[in-house]
Amino acid sequence: MPQKKPVENDKNQLTHFDTSGKAHMVDVGGKSETHRIAIACGTIRMKPETLAVVENHTADKGDVLGIARVAAIMGAKRTSDLIPLCHPVALTRVTVDFTITENSILCQARTETVGKTGVEMEALTAVQTGLLTIYDMLKAIDRGMTITDVRLLEKSGGKTGTWNAENRN
Amino acid sequence: MPQKKPVENDKNQLTHFDTSGKAHMVDVGGKSETHRIAIACGTIRMKPETLAVVENHTADKGDVLGIARVAAIMGAKRTSDLIPLCHPVALTRVTVDFTITENSILCQARTETVGKTGVEMEALTAVQTGLLTIYDMLKAIDRGMTITDVRLLEKSGGKTGTWNAENRN
Amino acid sequence: MPQKKPVENDKNQLTHFDTSGKAHMVDVGGKSETHRIAIACGTIRMKPETLAVVENHTADKGDVLGIARVAAIMGAKRTSDLIPLCHPVALTRVTVDFTITENSILCQARTETVGKTGVEMEALTAVQTGLLTIYDMLKAIDRGMTITDVRLLEKSGGKTGTWNAENRN
Amino acid sequence: MPQKKPVENDKNQLTHFDTSGKAHMVDVGGKSETHRIAIACGTIRMKPETLAVVENHTADKGDVLGIARVAAIMGAKRTSDLIPLCHPVALTRVTVDFTITENSILCQARTETVGKTGVEMEALTAVQTGLLTIYDMLKAIDRGMTITDVRLLEKSGGKTGTWNAENRN
Amino acid sequence: MPQKKPVENDKNQLTHFDTSGKAHMVDVGGKSETHRIAIACGTIRMKPETLAVVENHTADKGDVLGIARVAAIMGAKRTSDLIPLCHPVALTRVTVDFTITENSILCQARTETVGKTGVEMEALTAVQTGLLTIYDMLKAIDRGMTITDVRLLEKSGGKTGTWNAENRN
Amino acid sequence: MPQKKPVENDKNQLTHFDTSGKAHMVDVGGKSETHRIAIACGTIRMKPETLAVVENHTADKGDVLGIARVAAIMGAKRTSDLIPLCHPVALTRVTVDFTITENSILCQARTETVGKTGVEMEALTAVQTGLLTIYDMLKAIDRGMTITDVRLLEKSGGKTGTWNAENRN
Repeated sequence: MPQKKPVENDKNQLTHFDTSGKAHMVDVGGKSETHRIAIACGTIRMKPETLAVVENHTADKGDVLGIARVAAIMGAKRTSDLIPLCHPVALTRVTVDFTITENSILCQARTETVGKTGVEMEALTAVQTGLLTIYDMLKAIDRGMTITDVRLLEKSGGKTGTWNAENRN
Repeated sequence: MPQKKPVENDKNQLTHFDTSGKAHMVDVGGKSETHRIAIACGTIRMKPETLAVVENHTADKGDVLGIARVAAIMGAKRTSDLIPLCHPVALTRVTVDFTITENSILCQARTETVGKTGVEMEALTAVQTGLLTIYDMLKAIDRGMTITDVRLLEKSGGKTGTWNAENRN
Repeated sequence: MPQKKPVENDKNQLTHFDTSGKAHMVDVGGKSETHRIAIACGTIRMKPETLAVVENHTADKGDVLGIARVAAIMGAKRTSDLIPLCHPVALTRVTVDFTITENSILCQARTETVGKTGVEMEALTAVQTGLLTIYDMLKAIDRGMTITDVRLLEKSGGKTGTWNAENRN
Repeated sequence: MPQKKPVENDKNQLTHFDTSGKAHMVDVGGKSETHRIAIACGTIRMKPETLAVVENHTADKGDVLGIARVAAIMGAKRTSDLIPLCHPVALTRVTVDFTITENSILCQARTETVGKTGVEMEALTAVQTGLLTIYDMLKAIDRGMTITDVRLLEKSGGKTGTWNAENRN
Repeated sequence: MPQKKPVENDKNQLTHFDTSGKAHMVDVGGKSETHRIAIACGTIRMKPETLAVVENHTADKGDVLGIARVAAIMGAKRTSDLIPLCHPVALTRVTVDFTITENSILCQARTETVGKTGVEMEALTAVQTGLLTIYDMLKAIDRGMTITDVRLLEKSGGKTGTWNAENRN
Repeated sequence: MPQKKPVENDKNQLTHFDTSGKAHMVDVGGKSETHRIAIACGTIRMKPETLAVVENHTADKGDVLGIARVAAIMGAKRTSDLIPLCHPVALTRVTVDFTITENSILCQARTETVGKTGVEMEALTAVQTGLLTIYDMLKAIDRGMTITDVRLLEKSGGKTGTWNAENRN
């Protein structure tokens, strides 16, 4: 039996606009406070020799990924400052992991709250800030790096329940 | 005759770390103030029916791209708050364009300054903030959108001169 | 029978100062979390020909009011950064409307939270930021615009209950 | 002989939008760095008994205007964070004065820079933040206060030269 | 009978790092919301003649401590922006006091919240910001001032209960 | 021959206040742009067993000092947001070092700019933010740590020239 997909809104109506087309910060006052989790990921692709420098800089020689992780966590906390219609959210947890593959670094961020609205944007902002920080530290040796495949992997909590990228429509 | 590529640093030394591996904000005090330009781009991919909603929301029904453009411009101004080792920069110009293709929206940002350090990170941060804002406004109808191919297209000014993505190594 | 006006503090004691005159962020820890709403408004007056430009810039030619609305919503979120003794508040809703009259634009903002303290300052900050943003975009053609009549229209929730500008003392 | 009024832009073209109507942060890279000054003012009107409380709170009993002044100065520094298309400006001076009249407090702010773009928005933002802060501290005793007549008094420096509210068109 | 000291973590494990040594924002989602209080203090030492200037500037001649108090309160609100792994906290109260001694000024800050995590960092950040602000205002006459003895005095609420500096291990 | 001490202001007049005692952001518009450097330091004292944990957390097990260094650098950039009367400064360099002694960690920060005003506050804010971040990461195992001896070591550039802590009055 296929997994039941979460209810989505009417495809012709964006919740961030009222019926006359004006943007607003959506009313979440009536939503219940639930435990909400989001997991997002993204990748930065680079030349193998650039990647070798990163691998050489995780300990005494300067911790590229350690700094990117701090930036990602701090970025998650700035989400509602950056994204105009995002609600301020009291994050209760943020974790950020990096995985080095052949020619890229994968960043995965997990954000959580107990609140009235989801934390998908916080997870995505963490990923973007982490990857931009890697770009910044490496750009002197490789300006051609590309940030790619930034997306939501999973979210749970709230009225629409659990969603994951595998089973989406 | 092939274009001469810009001089790059020693591949084994990251400028953001001193010789003992400690991160620092690089000394740019001795650099000359030149006109610096950076152009970056990125894409958000989505289902055709989601894209149709965006196209339907550029005027009276709520201007998704107009809001994303404002967020991108404001995001550029927050770059040094977000990226740990970035210098504060007095931007003299920011422009942001969106192009709708078959199943994606392309964002291109151009940042400029007259100063001692480049504005590549500002252009990339503008793109990321713009695309994240689009994601935010559309996520209620399509959580599976992907932000991809975020990269620098071109930069000019400063000691390393002009670089563009076409002719890079 | 006249409406009973809400209880107000002793006129000679400001809550933002302790008995020795030192400013503090008032203790709201013991207050109950209630649904709180505030509505504020304000006006920017300008020459008729300036107003005509705004009316000409609501769609393809550049959406002055759309940008001002985004700024107003984001401004509401920055209230506790700007106003020294304001508590941080998790806004659950922000809406902003503009009405064009003969020689002015009226801005009305509504802010809501479910929390221990009111959101009047958030509504007023939204209005001010929205009107300042209009000024910014039009100042090249009319520096003499005036922002006026910025005030609270209504608030509800919390111990002092409902207040509206019509029935005030 | 009447004073020559400063050159103004084509009334049908807003500099904050390109020819296709897209908002941008205007290019000021080519402008010369001149000494720029702006003076703005605004008023908050209140009941005489509220004003008496303020007058009673300028020294040992809690300095309402002292706090509002600090907020106004700090607000000036946040201008480019709040106003979407404002350039970041390195302010070289900010002064803020309050004058108490019969039933209102007048706030006047002066901002200066040596730079490529004017500081009108910084002066106006200082005034607004100062007046909002007064509102915040007094709202418990008088929610019906009104902020009014916020406007630019004078500006000098830059290509358009000196402008003052008296001689405007 | 000696007071039982609060349970502390395993001395070899820092909660801000996971088992593989990666920094994270600790999960507080499962913690209960309790009334949490923290009190911190710190001192700035200066030459007697500098101190005399401060004492001379608490009323009409410019209120050094009044401004430092506002900065301290606002600083408390910025804590999670500054300290990478701090959770955002909705402060419900902040008070800041200064005491002038023979050759120094003592700053004491009290922060409170009703929430899932403590407010020690907020109290310490308030103290530091207040003392730095005093330094800033006096540095033109005495650059040799020293900020010293910044520490937590007391905290209560949460799982680890009450702690005070007197009875610590 | 004794070193000539730098000229200091009249001891009874604070530059941050005008003659009537009102705080202002001092006019630096007429100052020349010179290369300015400041070096500040500070110490956090802790139990030897706490210090042992830090020493154990500089590489694979979680880099306490690496994170504190990032926070310190970012803190320097936030100085004018935190200190009310500080001018915004375009820092051209920030370095932060930590030295572990028997029972404490010493933080030293160096900030530089080419500008009209000094960077002493930026160096001190970097130190404070770095030390607070160490406190934050270790507080679960030792709440009794003390931040102490935060002071300016040296500054150069600008009209008052070079100052260092050794030769001060």
